[in-house]
Amino acid sequence: MYPEIIQSLIEIFSNLTGVGEKTAQRYVLELVEWESDQLEQFSKQIAEIKTKLKKCKKCHNFTENDLCNICIDKNRNQDEICVVETVRDLIVIEKSGIYRGKYFVLEKLISIVDNVYPEDIHIQELVELCRENEIKEVIIALSLNVAGETTTQYISKKLALENIKTTRLASGIPIGTNIEFTDQLTLVSAFNGRK
Amino acid sequence: MYPEIIQSLIEIFSNLTGVGEKTAQRYVLELVEWESDQLEQFSKQIAEIKTKLKKCKKCHNFTENDLCNICIDKNRNQDEICVVETVRDLIVIEKSGIYRGKYFVLEKLISIVDNVYPEDIHIQELVELCRENEIKEVIIALSLNVAGETTTQYISKKLALENIKTTRLASGIPIGTNIEFTDQLTLVSAFNGRK
Repeated sequence: MYPEIIQSLIEIFSNLTGVGEKTAQRYVLELVEWESDQLEQFSKQIAEIKTKLKKCKKCHNFTENDLCNICIDKNRNQDEICVVETVRDLIVIEKSGIYRGKYFVLEKLISIVDNVYPEDIHIQELVELCRENEIKEVIIALSLNVAGETTTQYISKKLALENIKTTRLASGIPIGTNIEFTDQLTLVSAFNGRK
Repeated sequence: MYPEIIQSLIEIFSNLTGVGEKTAQRYVLELVEWESDQLEQFSKQIAEIKTKLKKCKKCHNFTENDLCNICIDKNRNQDEICVVETVRDLIVIEKSGIYRGKYFVLEKLISIVDNVYPEDIHIQELVELCRENEIKEVIIALSLNVAGETTTQYISKKLALENIKTTRLASGIPIGTNIEFTDQLTLVSAFNGRK
């Protein structure tokens, strides 16, 4: 019904999670009205993703070089590593400004249902990184779901064998949340962690 | 915080209506994980928008040629034109399958507040198209808001001078809608149009 190029762009946009056909159609019909130089820029940047963008050899954060900006930053605490699942999580923590150490992006969590076993994720790499860099504390900041819990426990045990201290973020009632609407597990955790 | 290429792609995606920084970030972090050939295809299609995509010289629908697929289709009713505001509206009507004539995309509606006057939109072109093609009926399918109403009335008057019949879509209560939640104007229109 649409010219081929519009149809194929709609299909491409629909590949993004959460973008259905209608949303994709809306994006594309807007895109075709953009100025030439905006479109050129867009096209160029997408083409350059695979050539320019790499993963940091140390922590798997995105970078345009071998090591990411955080790994080469000498002003950050060199003896702390915060373990996160995704670069998105890293960014959220960075934006909060609460943490000034290094990171390690796991990229995946252990999940038996999804056939992801400990040897499939970068845990051994993390252990070696801790060993080589005399890390004093590893803060595990993974999601509080089954996969996150399993991975947290696995990493804690592994690092305990190396005599490296691991901590995890406190769980409890989110600030601004009504107690009435807090789920029971969170409530139990908030009670146990009371201070 | 992100490498430059990610940051600049986030900014580009944020230009789309309804896409905030968080959504753009989510799209881009997903995009960077796509396969090379998918990204190449995406980049190529965007680059080709301005070279390949044109507006139909007759009706302003999108096309990769001089005239769009609907304008060159000899199996469609040649003496009916349906006037819509956007290509999106055209597509919605096409998908319903209710209409088998030609279209005319106005692209803009008359709107004094936005400084869009009758001479700024393709009305004269529409009149000439009707005159040259011995059109018997022009169905005006514009939105039922102030700009749509103004434009509908203006076009009706213009075409009346040419002795061309204009009709408009019936207004009333949408199918499946509870009368309780119908606004008063729609209710009045539904009463007046009862049959």
